[in-house]
Amino acid sequence: MNIINPRSGTSFILKKGQKLKITDIEGEQVADLMCYNLNDKKEYLSSGRTIDYAETIFLTKGHPFYSNRSNVMFNIVEDTVGRHDFLLTPCSSDTFRIIYGHKNPHQGCFGNLCNAFKEYGITPDDIPTTFNVFMHVTVNGETGRVDVLPPTSKAEDYIMIEAEMDLIVGLTACSAEMSNNYSFKPIGYEIIE
Amino acid sequence: MNIINPRSGTSFILKKGQKLKITDIEGEQVADLMCYNLNDKKEYLSSGRTIDYAETIFLTKGHPFYSNRSNVMFNIVEDTVGRHDFLLTPCSSDTFRIIYGHKNPHQGCFGNLCNAFKEYGITPDDIPTTFNVFMHVTVNGETGRVDVLPPTSKAEDYIMIEAEMDLIVGLTACSAEMSNNYSFKPIGYEIIE
Repeated sequence: MNIINPRSGTSFILKKGQKLKITDIEGEQVADLMCYNLNDKKEYLSSGRTIDYAETIFLTKGHPFYSNRSNVMFNIVEDTVGRHDFLLTPCSSDTFRIIYGHKNPHQGCFGNLCNAFKEYGITPDDIPTTFNVFMHVTVNGETGRVDVLPPTSKAEDYIMIEAEMDLIVGLTACSAEMSNNYSFKPIGYEIIE
Repeated sequence: MNIINPRSGTSFILKKGQKLKITDIEGEQVADLMCYNLNDKKEYLSSGRTIDYAETIFLTKGHPFYSNRSNVMFNIVEDTVGRHDFLLTPCSSDTFRIIYGHKNPHQGCFGNLCNAFKEYGITPDDIPTTFNVFMHVTVNGETGRVDVLPPTSKAEDYIMIEAEMDLIVGLTACSAEMSNNYSFKPIGYEIIE
């Protein structure tokens, strides 16, 4: 298993048919995931299209994840948690400044993804809303209020996705206090043929 | 007042400090809105950042709308409805194919926005999740289920936004049956100095 250190990120290629297993090694840790079509990087994972076609904000095993062009990029094929977020953008220095009031903010998952995608020519402006694996976001249907709670994932919980096209994938071990119950931990991942 | 005909769209410049009034002329009609920084079109309206900082999915008077770079693009300054959507992508030929099962699908708000933005060099891949004015989307906080209901807006209801930077704005009179209670109607708009 590959390890993403706390508050860092990485990127890699996931070929069509390959599976990616993402493991919450210690529990209560979030991993932001973003992906692009390897053969045309203007095609990217779309929260709006995915939620629209799934008719739910709780995406889990069996749900296809769509690109901005309405093509399926991957499916979730296993999921021991069943609670993830696809509403919010990756934490960033702006998040820490605006929400947490930090004076010298960390670059967050957004900065970590920017660095990880640099080698593929993907720029910061190309990073939209990410799929935030294990992130526990509640929505109050009456008031609209959005809350970020500690993940429901325990040690060794995991999600497995299967690529439906060749993908460039970015993945982080999240840097935001609220998302991880105020403790920064690693994330594990494996590519399975 | 300018009129957007049923199932069509338009684009225009909204300068910093100008207000845009969007009117549901007949009631129960949706208008998808997208905008870009006039001086740098890589900066675009971001659902993820806006919802994250507002901590609600029900955006109304007083809420700032953020770009992907966490700058405020506009504020809602008046709103007689209070119920809009920022979760879903514009309806498109793919929406009509996947959700409605249409054989010869309409190009939808997405196609209308693509045409409207062409003159500014904004391409289809540059159009992410839009702010869907008057669109009535419910989320069940327990199950995650997303439903599209008839808008709560009545004839002459409106929303007014004030630009916080110079913007290229795209606006539609929505083309999706469910969004408008199965009747296609026009949308009105005025730019106020």
